[in-house]
Amino acid sequence: MEKEEKPALRLIALLHGPDQPGLVARTASWIYERGGNILHADQHRDDEAGVFLQRIEWVPADGIEADAPAFRRFAEGLGMTLKLASTESRPRIALMASRTGHCFTDLLARWHMGELPCEIACALSNHRDLSSISGYYGVPFHHVPVQREKKAAAEAEQLAILRRNDVDLVVMARYMQVLSAEFLEGCGCPVINIHHSFLPAFAGARPYHQAHARGVKLIGATAHYATAVLDDGPIIQQDVSAVNHRHSVRDLVRKGRDLEKSVLAQAVRWHLDHRVLVYGRKTVVFD
Amino acid sequence: MEKEEKPALRLIALLHGPDQPGLVARTASWIYERGGNILHADQHRDDEAGVFLQRIEWVPADGIEADAPAFRRFAEGLGMTLKLASTESRPRIALMASRTGHCFTDLLARWHMGELPCEIACALSNHRDLSSISGYYGVPFHHVPVQREKKAAAEAEQLAILRRNDVDLVVMARYMQVLSAEFLEGCGCPVINIHHSFLPAFAGARPYHQAHARGVKLIGATAHYATAVLDDGPIIQQDVSAVNHRHSVRDLVRKGRDLEKSVLAQAVRWHLDHRVLVYGRKTVVFD
Amino acid sequence: MEKEEKPALRLIALLHGPDQPGLVARTASWIYERGGNILHADQHRDDEAGVFLQRIEWVPADGIEADAPAFRRFAEGLGMTLKLASTESRPRIALMASRTGHCFTDLLARWHMGELPCEIACALSNHRDLSSISGYYGVPFHHVPVQREKKAAAEAEQLAILRRNDVDLVVMARYMQVLSAEFLEGCGCPVINIHHSFLPAFAGARPYHQAHARGVKLIGATAHYATAVLDDGPIIQQDVSAVNHRHSVRDLVRKGRDLEKSVLAQAVRWHLDHRVLVYGRKTVVFD
Amino acid sequence: MEKEEKPALRLIALLHGPDQPGLVARTASWIYERGGNILHADQHRDDEAGVFLQRIEWVPADGIEADAPAFRRFAEGLGMTLKLASTESRPRIALMASRTGHCFTDLLARWHMGELPCEIACALSNHRDLSSISGYYGVPFHHVPVQREKKAAAEAEQLAILRRNDVDLVVMARYMQVLSAEFLEGCGCPVINIHHSFLPAFAGARPYHQAHARGVKLIGATAHYATAVLDDGPIIQQDVSAVNHRHSVRDLVRKGRDLEKSVLAQAVRWHLDHRVLVYGRKTVVFD
Repeated sequence: MEKEEKPALRLIALLHGPDQPGLVARTASWIYERGGNILHADQHRDDEAGVFLQRIEWVPADGIEADAPAFRRFAEGLGMTLKLASTESRPRIALMASRTGHCFTDLLARWHMGELPCEIACALSNHRDLSSISGYYGVPFHHVPVQREKKAAAEAEQLAILRRNDVDLVVMARYMQVLSAEFLEGCGCPVINIHHSFLPAFAGARPYHQAHARGVKLIGATAHYATAVLDDGPIIQQDVSAVNHRHSVRDLVRKGRDLEKSVLAQAVRWHLDHRVLVYGRKTVVFD
Repeated sequence: MEKEEKPALRLIALLHGPDQPGLVARTASWIYERGGNILHADQHRDDEAGVFLQRIEWVPADGIEADAPAFRRFAEGLGMTLKLASTESRPRIALMASRTGHCFTDLLARWHMGELPCEIACALSNHRDLSSISGYYGVPFHHVPVQREKKAAAEAEQLAILRRNDVDLVVMARYMQVLSAEFLEGCGCPVINIHHSFLPAFAGARPYHQAHARGVKLIGATAHYATAVLDDGPIIQQDVSAVNHRHSVRDLVRKGRDLEKSVLAQAVRWHLDHRVLVYGRKTVVFD
Repeated sequence: MEKEEKPALRLIALLHGPDQPGLVARTASWIYERGGNILHADQHRDDEAGVFLQRIEWVPADGIEADAPAFRRFAEGLGMTLKLASTESRPRIALMASRTGHCFTDLLARWHMGELPCEIACALSNHRDLSSISGYYGVPFHHVPVQREKKAAAEAEQLAILRRNDVDLVVMARYMQVLSAEFLEGCGCPVINIHHSFLPAFAGARPYHQAHARGVKLIGATAHYATAVLDDGPIIQQDVSAVNHRHSVRDLVRKGRDLEKSVLAQAVRWHLDHRVLVYGRKTVVFD
Repeated sequence: MEKEEKPALRLIALLHGPDQPGLVARTASWIYERGGNILHADQHRDDEAGVFLQRIEWVPADGIEADAPAFRRFAEGLGMTLKLASTESRPRIALMASRTGHCFTDLLARWHMGELPCEIACALSNHRDLSSISGYYGVPFHHVPVQREKKAAAEAEQLAILRRNDVDLVVMARYMQVLSAEFLEGCGCPVINIHHSFLPAFAGARPYHQAHARGVKLIGATAHYATAVLDDGPIIQQDVSAVNHRHSVRDLVRKGRDLEKSVLAQAVRWHLDHRVLVYGRKTVVFD
């Protein structure tokens, strides 16, 4: 097994705002002059939008408590929108799933292996199927049934659980209910979702059956931040698998599951590493 | 350089029709009993449609002239739709392109290297840009300008050229005009087209700009048989490339060109090797 | 969730032997004449070796008990080497692992979801780390410590466990001990192994560190049947991931784990579906 | 077709040297204080080697003539090794090839389409086969036969041609002769080579035949900078294609050609965009 040294505490800033000359120099100099050690700095200019975007990761000389508020004021002075995180605090995440457990189990196993720098604070489901595996990994499981006519009540109960658990991120690991705009607004943190995707796109029910009937040669999966418009949020990661006529609908579904697992895990890891900067309807992933 | 032996003349049958017991045995036995040597036999059952599909390639003992008509009668007796080809005759193909030459030049270079078992009988374009490279490879180039209000006349001229050249396949190597249903009907042979494709799909103009604005992580290309409904024909091949925020629209366009070249060349080669069986709105590629 | 019909019992034959005219016709006719319904038939000729290879899957009219021995005699008469399986019996497999659980846990979770048509009869490990997850999935776990100077005794104990469990396949899911030729001989069934693979290859210890130091742009994983020569057995499946300078050794190891999981699971599934035909030093995968 | 604006002249620095605090701030501040506009800045730390590496691209306020020598002195003062290029001068490249034209023709066609920001100053070959296509694209073609016992004389003639043409980069587009250490020393500029690559590696003649005999499931291609040790230079790019038993040796060779084309073109483009930083036995590609 790979040994790892305990790394020093770091601050990670995700900045974006109107481009102006000298931004790279000014952020780097600010950190350098306070004795900080920049480990990574990656920037990007969206030429069309005139937006400057940066991810910068450093070891502050005087500790996180001193640098964090000072850097916030500095970024504000530059007119930048800032997300600032430290490696001191591990984000708390909630998993939501329905009955199918491939993404849910995969995330728990990766977390258990140390691949995901977070606490999995709780699991929520509208079914009981995944209660046992959740328990195996020591994650409290909340069963919140969702009935069509009582959806608002169920969402209120879900929101209460999320708030009690002080959650920083919700991961929909194949949660098969559409979340309302009110829920997304109310949960007060980002929500990552995973869905299948095809070329061409297939609207309506049973997309794998449609894709099979159409003889597509690729199937895909897309992870994105959930927004009130279904499957239209900023894309974090996408991948595809080749398929052919030898694959039945069942094979397509199974291959789709493998894609969903790896694409969702990658998106969650990037989010937890503070690599995903959202602006407008899109993301920049500083990978 | 790889040496190749001259292979024996072969017959290649693409069969499909209602499934019934014994089809594999009956086609194989028919060939075996006449002394034929089966080189490849691949079959598939579309369980949902109840359709049997087969590609079978053999060296006939008594020559092509004897076996071909007899096999046609045999397949008819089985209630099968048959496409029968021999390696004796090389299909004659026409390339259609506009100004951008990446697919056009790539197909000519591959043909020149012996990768495509066909004659490129002629090239047609609504511009003159590709006349020179066409001439370099010895392919007669026909310039047929297409004006919006005289499109029917232009298509009539194109059809006349295709007929004079006795063409078996039309390849649209980035021909930027929509072909009318009349043209597709009139040309009397399959037409392979290539187009970009994205997840999600982008309707309207400048799709690469839309994809860039949306922050997609994949771009794709799809080769299909052209039908009267734009970009809706049976899919032959699809592929994608990963992209990220470091790629400008120009990079996306360039990466898209690479995809278009390889996907179109693969689709054309499979067609020329008689590996693509079209039924309903889909293909089976016996690769 | 996808619904599945209970399929009819099938026989699956993997045949190979010296090529001769009429083999496709003769096997298909044999089945047809006895009322069997061929679901899939795929064949291949290794032109250089003069070998005919076939996978054929059918629903026998008179049941498995009648057709199986008769088909064995028939294949023997053709001079073919035959592996014959029925979907009636589920292969019994043993998982061997050390401390790292990614492949082990992944296979258990896939099995639990119904992706692998087998019984996981037992798990063996030279450590105790994976005892708990094995237990969660209801698989008996055997801890067999392996000390360098007592390896033969440990292997004898492992072989006894495999025999007691009547195992049809051993899957080395990151078992970090080299198996002796005696063990491979003694276990009397195929052994599938997974290992990392790089371009160029790196001999010796800490291959991920070497790959990182060399600046490779791809890392890979290869699943193969174990033979007495280390990592030299017939290859079943290979895959790669792109890496770049932003990836640390830890990232490479993590990406390697993802490859190992998916490549090993694919190899095991193909094996269990009787799709892998081994001959000489290679495989044909009838996928 | 995509329209492109004429971009402003830029300087591109590739820096590397011993890591020290403040490097990001100091390079960025140097440029900013002289009124320069940083378009891209990407840096990397090789933690194991203790090396800082950076690519920085900017529009100098006072023109290239003023900034270039001043930045050289600045980088020297930091103890950094510097490669400095401007977009004013287009690198002059020489193509070397033997008889097989896929890479050679592909690079010429891409250059003709404007994909490669360089001048192709000349072509050299030990055969005459590619003279015609070279002439079509307006590139002077030099036929230098190489006889085994007169190789030194041939290399001297090649070097004289390269010097006369003031070449900045040599691209071996399937040049099938091993270049001597003297040639590599004498040509005074980087040499990019492309070769096939397999898992496992196959030494000796006819590697595609060996790979086929071994039943590999992937074939690959690797572009690297040529060094005196054959195929051991710093890797720039690698890619693979999946293959299976249905692919003959000819198919493998053809698929290998496609890989070689795309991998070599990508490596050459990155080099021409000053994205490849070589240090030790490896590269960092700031893509």
